[in-house]
Amino acid sequence: MGDLGAVYAAVERERERFIGDLQRVVRQPSISSQGIGVRECAELLVTMMGDLGIDARVLETAGLPVVYGEIRAPNPDAPTLVIYNHYDVQPPEPLEEWDYPPFGAEVHDGILYGRGATDAKGNLLAHLKAVDAFRVAGVSLPCNLKFLFDGEEESGSPSLPDFVAAHTDLLAADAALSFDGGFDADDRPHIGFGSSGLLFVEIRARGARADLHSARARLVENPAWRLVWALGALKGPDGRINLDGFYDAIRPVTDIDRAALAQTGWNDEAQRRSLGTDHFLGGVSGLASFEQLLFTPTCNIAGFGTGWMGEGHKTVLPSRAACRLDFRLVADQDPDTILAALRRFLDEHGCADFEVEDMGSIEPSRTTLDTPFAAVVIDAARQVYGGEPAVRPTGDASGRQGVWLGGRLGGIPAAGTGIGPPAWRGHAANEFMSLAHYLNGIKYAATIWELFGARR
Amino acid sequence: MGDLGAVYAAVERERERFIGDLQRVVRQPSISSQGIGVRECAELLVTMMGDLGIDARVLETAGLPVVYGEIRAPNPDAPTLVIYNHYDVQPPEPLEEWDYPPFGAEVHDGILYGRGATDAKGNLLAHLKAVDAFRVAGVSLPCNLKFLFDGEEESGSPSLPDFVAAHTDLLAADAALSFDGGFDADDRPHIGFGSSGLLFVEIRARGARADLHSARARLVENPAWRLVWALGALKGPDGRINLDGFYDAIRPVTDIDRAALAQTGWNDEAQRRSLGTDHFLGGVSGLASFEQLLFTPTCNIAGFGTGWMGEGHKTVLPSRAACRLDFRLVADQDPDTILAALRRFLDEHGCADFEVEDMGSIEPSRTTLDTPFAAVVIDAARQVYGGEPAVRPTGDASGRQGVWLGGRLGGIPAAGTGIGPPAWRGHAANEFMSLAHYLNGIKYAATIWELFGARR
Repeated sequence: MGDLGAVYAAVERERERFIGDLQRVVRQPSISSQGIGVRECAELLVTMMGDLGIDARVLETAGLPVVYGEIRAPNPDAPTLVIYNHYDVQPPEPLEEWDYPPFGAEVHDGILYGRGATDAKGNLLAHLKAVDAFRVAGVSLPCNLKFLFDGEEESGSPSLPDFVAAHTDLLAADAALSFDGGFDADDRPHIGFGSSGLLFVEIRARGARADLHSARARLVENPAWRLVWALGALKGPDGRINLDGFYDAIRPVTDIDRAALAQTGWNDEAQRRSLGTDHFLGGVSGLASFEQLLFTPTCNIAGFGTGWMGEGHKTVLPSRAACRLDFRLVADQDPDTILAALRRFLDEHGCADFEVEDMGSIEPSRTTLDTPFAAVVIDAARQVYGGEPAVRPTGDASGRQGVWLGGRLGGIPAAGTGIGPPAWRGHAANEFMSLAHYLNGIKYAATIWELFGARR
Repeated sequence: MGDLGAVYAAVERERERFIGDLQRVVRQPSISSQGIGVRECAELLVTMMGDLGIDARVLETAGLPVVYGEIRAPNPDAPTLVIYNHYDVQPPEPLEEWDYPPFGAEVHDGILYGRGATDAKGNLLAHLKAVDAFRVAGVSLPCNLKFLFDGEEESGSPSLPDFVAAHTDLLAADAALSFDGGFDADDRPHIGFGSSGLLFVEIRARGARADLHSARARLVENPAWRLVWALGALKGPDGRINLDGFYDAIRPVTDIDRAALAQTGWNDEAQRRSLGTDHFLGGVSGLASFEQLLFTPTCNIAGFGTGWMGEGHKTVLPSRAACRLDFRLVADQDPDTILAALRRFLDEHGCADFEVEDMGSIEPSRTTLDTPFAAVVIDAARQVYGGEPAVRPTGDASGRQGVWLGGRLGGIPAAGTGIGPPAWRGHAANEFMSLAHYLNGIKYAATIWELFGARR
């Protein structure tokens, strides 16, 4: 703890400068979905990283650029950690709901307000300022670090898979880590070892050339009925998804996974209240609900549109019907395989004429909980924050972050955690970071590196 | 034919005046759905009818007024004909598509252009000008006439059932007749002996209190799926509608009905082209298609809306889903009975929480083809136009016109026909009436009355 104590002390000593650096980055908008300031923010980060001795540069992708950087530990045997983060942010709209300017990074009563303050610029800066803290403390870095900062995360990271595939040598590492989001409602850091996958499609059916008076429904096929029937065959009231091989690749839930869930303090009543429902699907309760939330795939109707649903009395036989389905996938379901199975299903159910548009997919990612690296991150959280972190063997949402990256780099151990304060209002007005959580987050990053370097 | 010859001659002699009277009525807007000019048009008609010796008045309904009038034949044994028509019109929009002012009633090359020129002011005036022609020819009316002119037909005649129920004595007659629409593409008058019924409903399902991130679809019910499954149970790919007793009241198709269909010159190719489809439901062809169009009920999805179908990538678990269904009904299915069966069906299929809104219904109506009155109308058409009219034992569309009225008045014989030129552009821009069709229509009305009075 001697070296780490010096690093912690440096964080306290440099706190005003470290807060100022976060303000500087928050004040540079980088809204990927609106194409605002993203490249300027990338350049700013490269400059800041260079000042810390990180060999940093902007790397192009098919979309918005990645910021890449690396810095080596003096010990030639030190292990390498690759760190994923993103520097783009959500749009700030609606502006009238903000109490402070969204790109002002104003601090009031120990809270820094701004778009990206937590998601994910606060998280990202925790890593860079940890490098800074080691440096000003005169302590050697305990591991080699590679930084991969995505510029498109808030737009679904569409260019990331190809970028990573093209740079596996550059990114090669012994473990992968991401910081994003933050603490649970009970102020415990969340540590996740997986994300759901996603397959999002639009299915379109056509009937006659144009909409018709509905009296003609006696002779002319209604594409809305055909779509309803296809959906009913795809998934019936029993909830089973009738695609060939849909469930085959699902990794069984282990006792280790279940033990992790048991420690999270799941509360049915609180969850139902927050979801606005009075019962869970399938009548599950307790930990079985949590297991269902994390470990089962879905086929969800995210939209269905046909005919006329507006004002007035319009009895129409629609010429078109369309729906959007999203499948939340779990390890190791493959979105491409399932998309192909969906196409075959439609073909075999008399719907070969239906169009299926792939609107985007994300591979599920999981790493096991019993790796030394998992223990490193959990121990680091205990050491910095006290108490037990909220360990999740996987997550219900979908994304391409640390665990995903670990999977793409040969299945190296990986984890995703975050340093933001509870209810940090990500994607909403008045997003914030508390200065305490930010400074502790810098220590959290430093501690993970230290334990990772030592345990190796 | 002596008396009728004098009436025909009067039509020719008075043609300019009769055309002027139609122009006068077309120039008075009477748009029921926009509440424009309806009452003014009713007053104009009462005045015009009074000038012809018709005892006419405006009668109030729960909605827009009815114009009622009666005139007796000198012969105390003469039968009574009740004539349904409507004096309201569709809105003229979009105005920029008209070549002439929609309420200008301009005549160009023997064509009178204007909203309502055929639908149904031209049809309505044919009756009034037939009274006029009998009068100026000095020929006695061959039957008693009662006129019921609806002011809400273009809005679905919502007040008509209660009005008729409250005035059965006033409206009592030996037969019922309506004029609306006009000729087929091959310039033959259309004579119909029935209309379809309609039940139009919106069904609404709810899930959680608000829309959720679709990752929560593992735990929270999606109302769109429940609606899809309910619809699939209501009607499967076999097309059968699974409501208790749905088919019980359907009147069998008779040999007389089929014989009438056989005379219509149904052409699969032409029908498919006009409907914009390459096949008919159930693979029917020839007269079986026509029989299916006229004599089978439907359950049609006229709309379905849930979730997000707009631009962008929004994977949502919707909190609401709704659909609109219209059932086209055939004699003697009862919309109220079927609405109750639909409610029971949902209750029994675990959807007791679904809301069902009755958006309007119309009773199916049929009269047989073998009445003396049917022969009167068909013979009159032959006499005035030459050749065979297009006789339809019933119609695919739904409405409350002559045959419906006959049903409500104790099941008296009834028919619906029309005098407009082929493709008269009802409900569209540049609606028109040809002067030749108008003047022949007056003779057609007169001839029906004459034959009706004589055959009795």
